Amino acid sequence: MLRITDEGFEKAFKKIVNDRRESDDNVAQDVTLIINEVRRRGDAALAEYTARFDNHRLTEDDDWRISAETCRAAFEGLDDVLRDALVLAADRIRAYHEAQLPEDRDYTDSIGVRLGARWLPVDAAGLYVPGGRAAYPSSLLMNAIPAKVAGVARLVAVTPTPKGVTNPLVLAAAHLAGVDEVWRVGGAQAVAALAYGTDRIAAVDVVTGPGNAWVAEAKRQLFGVVGIDMVAGPSEILVIADNKNNPDWIAADLLSQAEHDPDAQSILITDDEKFAWQVEDRVDVQSSMLSTNKTASASWERHGVMIVVENLDQAAPLANQLAAEHVELALDDPDAMFAKIRHAGSVFLGRHTPEAIGDYVAGPNHVLPTGRRARFASGLSVLDFMKRTSFLSADEDALAAIGPAGIALANAEGLPAHAKSIEMRLK
Amino acid sequence: MLRITDEGFEKAFKKIVNDRRESDDNVAQDVTLIINEVRRRGDAALAEYTARFDNHRLTEDDDWRISAETCRAAFEGLDDVLRDALVLAADRIRAYHEAQLPEDRDYTDSIGVRLGARWLPVDAAGLYVPGGRAAYPSSLLMNAIPAKVAGVARLVAVTPTPKGVTNPLVLAAAHLAGVDEVWRVGGAQAVAALAYGTDRIAAVDVVTGPGNAWVAEAKRQLFGVVGIDMVAGPSEILVIADNKNNPDWIAADLLSQAEHDPDAQSILITDDEKFAWQVEDRVDVQSSMLSTNKTASASWERHGVMIVVENLDQAAPLANQLAAEHVELALDDPDAMFAKIRHAGSVFLGRHTPEAIGDYVAGPNHVLPTGRRARFASGLSVLDFMKRTSFLSADEDALAAIGPAGIALANAEGLPAHAKSIEMRLK
Repeated sequence: MLRITDEGFEKAFKKIVNDRRESDDNVAQDVTLIINEVRRRGDAALAEYTARFDNHRLTEDDDWRISAETCRAAFEGLDDVLRDALVLAADRIRAYHEAQLPEDRDYTDSIGVRLGARWLPVDAAGLYVPGGRAAYPSSLLMNAIPAKVAGVARLVAVTPTPKGVTNPLVLAAAHLAGVDEVWRVGGAQAVAALAYGTDRIAAVDVVTGPGNAWVAEAKRQLFGVVGIDMVAGPSEILVIADNKNNPDWIAADLLSQAEHDPDAQSILITDDEKFAWQVEDRVDVQSSMLSTNKTASASWERHGVMIVVENLDQAAPLANQLAAEHVELALDDPDAMFAKIRHAGSVFLGRHTPEAIGDYVAGPNHVLPTGRRARFASGLSVLDFMKRTSFLSADEDALAAIGPAGIALANAEGLPAHAKSIEMRLK
Repeated sequence: MLRITDEGFEKAFKKIVNDRRESDDNVAQDVTLIINEVRRRGDAALAEYTARFDNHRLTEDDDWRISAETCRAAFEGLDDVLRDALVLAADRIRAYHEAQLPEDRDYTDSIGVRLGARWLPVDAAGLYVPGGRAAYPSSLLMNAIPAKVAGVARLVAVTPTPKGVTNPLVLAAAHLAGVDEVWRVGGAQAVAALAYGTDRIAAVDVVTGPGNAWVAEAKRQLFGVVGIDMVAGPSEILVIADNKNNPDWIAADLLSQAEHDPDAQSILITDDEKFAWQVEDRVDVQSSMLSTNKTASASWERHGVMIVVENLDQAAPLANQLAAEHVELALDDPDAMFAKIRHAGSVFLGRHTPEAIGDYVAGPNHVLPTGRRARFASGLSVLDFMKRTSFLSADEDALAAIGPAGIALANAEGLPAHAKSIEMRLK
C-alpha cells in the first residue's frame, strides 16, 4: 500500500515502474547453440533436443506431426458448451480483426507522379503454442485467426508434447482456426526450425506466440531472419477504481492476473484507502479458495500494489508511467479517464467489463505489450502478418518536374550515379 | 551472367538468394559491454566512448549539443538550389506520410459490446544519423518526417561528429524536419543513451535510423527496451527490363545501388542476352567516370548479377525469391508484372522512374527492408512512431450474452479467478 501523500511516494513508485519482473536467466548462449545446431543439422538436431527436453521420440511421421484429422476429432469430441464457447470466441475475434485489414493506396498527385502502397500477407506464418500448464486454446485463436484474416496461406503451429501428451482443447482450437500444420516440437529448437526450415518443416516468414525464456530469446535472436511479434514478459493489470465498486469484483480482477504467473503484477489505484483495505481483504479470502492459490498469492505478495491517491485526477499520470498491459477503469465516467491515458495495451471501460472477458470472447487481441512496452508497442493484429510495398511511377513530364531536385540532392550527398540515373532520362 | 537455361541455374540462383552479404563482425560482446557501461555510468561513459571512437571531447554544453540556432543557420546558409530541393523533398515526403495516419475505431456490435482501437504517437523518438561518408540529409528527412507526422512531441537526433566536425546539410535537414534536440554522440553508446536515458539525454521510446554494425547490433539488443525499426543490411536493386530500354539508363540504375557500398547488390533480369551485354558494357564505361568508381565497381564485381530468362513471365517467381529492397520494372506494361510480384520493399514502375527519384523527392520512404526481409517487413512509416490501444466496454446485458462462454473457456484453461471475475458480475 502506497499513499500519494507519503513522504517517499515518488521514489517507491519509480521503483515499481522500473521493476521489469523479467527473467534474468542467462539463456542467450544456450539458445545460440541450439539455433546453430538446428540450422546446421536440421531434423536430426530437432529430434535430439525433443528427446532430451520433451522426453518425446521423433521417429515415425506420426511422432512429428499431429494430423488434421486428429485436430478435427478433438474439436468434434468437445462437450457442447465448450465447443460453442470456442466457436463464439473465434467468430468474435475474426470479426474484430477483419476490420483491421488495411487499405491499399494508389493515386496520382498534382504534378503527375503516381504513388501508392500495396498490402499483402506473408506467405507462411509460424505459431508457437506452449505445452503443459500454459497450453491455452484462447492463445492459439488469438494468434492464428489474425494470420488467417490477413490471408496467410500456410499457417504452421509448433508445440511441445512432453512424453507425447497433447492437449485436446488446443488441437480443437487449431482445427477451428484453420491451422495448416501442427508439429510436435517446442523450445528454441522449434523457433529455429521455423526460421531456417528443415527437411520436414519448411521455413516461415513470421513467428508469433508466447513461450518461456528460451522461446522468447530464440525469437529475439532470429528477429530479422523472420519477423516476430513483441517479446512478452509477465502479465499485468492496473485497475483504477472508485469506492462505488463492489470490492469483491475488483479483488477478482486483481487475482485474475495474479493467477497467471508468480511474476505477474496486479495494481489498484483508488482514491479511498478504506475501499483499498476492503479489496485487500477480499483478495485474501478469494485467493484461499482458488485452485491457483499458490501462484496467485505468490504474485500478489511479491508484486501486488495498492496506491491511494487524493483524487482520481492523479491516477492518469501514474497509469501513463506504468504503461500497463491491461487497464481497467471501474468508474462512472470511464471515457473521461481513458482520454487522459496515453499508454496502455488494452483498456476495459466501466464496472461490467472485467479484463477476463477480453482474454476470451470479446474480440480484441489478448496478445498485448507488457513491461511498459505499451509506450511504443501495440497488441497483435493482422498487420503483424502482412507487409506493405510502396510504389511509384513517373512519366517524362513528372520526372522533369521533380528530377532536378533529386539531382541536386544526390550530388550534394556525393552519389553521382544516383544523379546520372535521373539526369539521363531528362530531355 | 546466369541463363535460366543453364544446367546449374537453380543452384546458382539459390546461392544468390541465400547470400545475405551482411557483416559477420562479432560485435555482440563489445556492444553488450558498451550498453552496460552507459546504463550504469551514463554521461561519463558516453564521454569516454566519444573521446575514444570519435576523437571528440564532451566537456562544455556546446560539445554535447548542436543548438537549434546552429541548425537554422545551416539551413539558411545553403545555396538556393539545394535549399529548394530539400524543401521540395520534405514537402513531398510529408504529404505521402500524412496519408498513412491510421483511423481510430469505436463501434458497438449487435449484442451491445462496445469495441475499438485508438492510435497515439509515442512520447519521444530517437533518430540515429551516421557521421562521415554516410551522413545523408535525405535519410534524416525520411526518418524524422514520419515521426513528426505521427505527432511525436520530442524528436531527438544523435550523430557522431568525428573530431567535432559536423555536416551542414544534415543540420539543415534537422532544422527543416523539426528535430527537437541534436546530440553529438554516435555508435552503440548513443543508442544505449537513447534507450536508457542519461542525466543529459532523456530516454526515448523508439529508435530508428541507419548505422554501422555496432549501431545495428545495439538496436537489436535494445529491442524491447525501446521500439526499433527493422535492422538493415546493404542496399539492393533488382531491375527487370526488356530490350526496348536504353542500356545506358539501366546501367546507371544498377550503378546507383552499387555506389552505396561494396556489399550492395545490383541484379538485372532481362529476356535478351544481347541487351544484357550492352548494359554490362555501359556499366563499365559509366563506372570508370564516377567519383564513386571504387565502391561501385567493387560492388558490381562481387555482387552484381545479370540473369537472362527465356521470357519475362519467368522473372516474377525469381523476383519473389529475391524479395529485393528496390524493384524496377522497365517494361511497357509494368503493372502486369507488379501484380505478380509479392515481395519487394518498393517498386518503380516504367522506364521514366529511376530508383534514385524515390531516394530523394518522390515521397514514399526510402528506409526499406533489405536482405529478403520484404517477405515479412515494410518500409518505415508513421506507424513505426505510433501505437494502438484496444478498448472494450460491456454493460450488464452484453456481459450476460458473452460472459458464460468466457467462463467456460477460463475454467477449461484452469484459470478460476478469470471465471470468477466474470461470474460475479452476472445476475
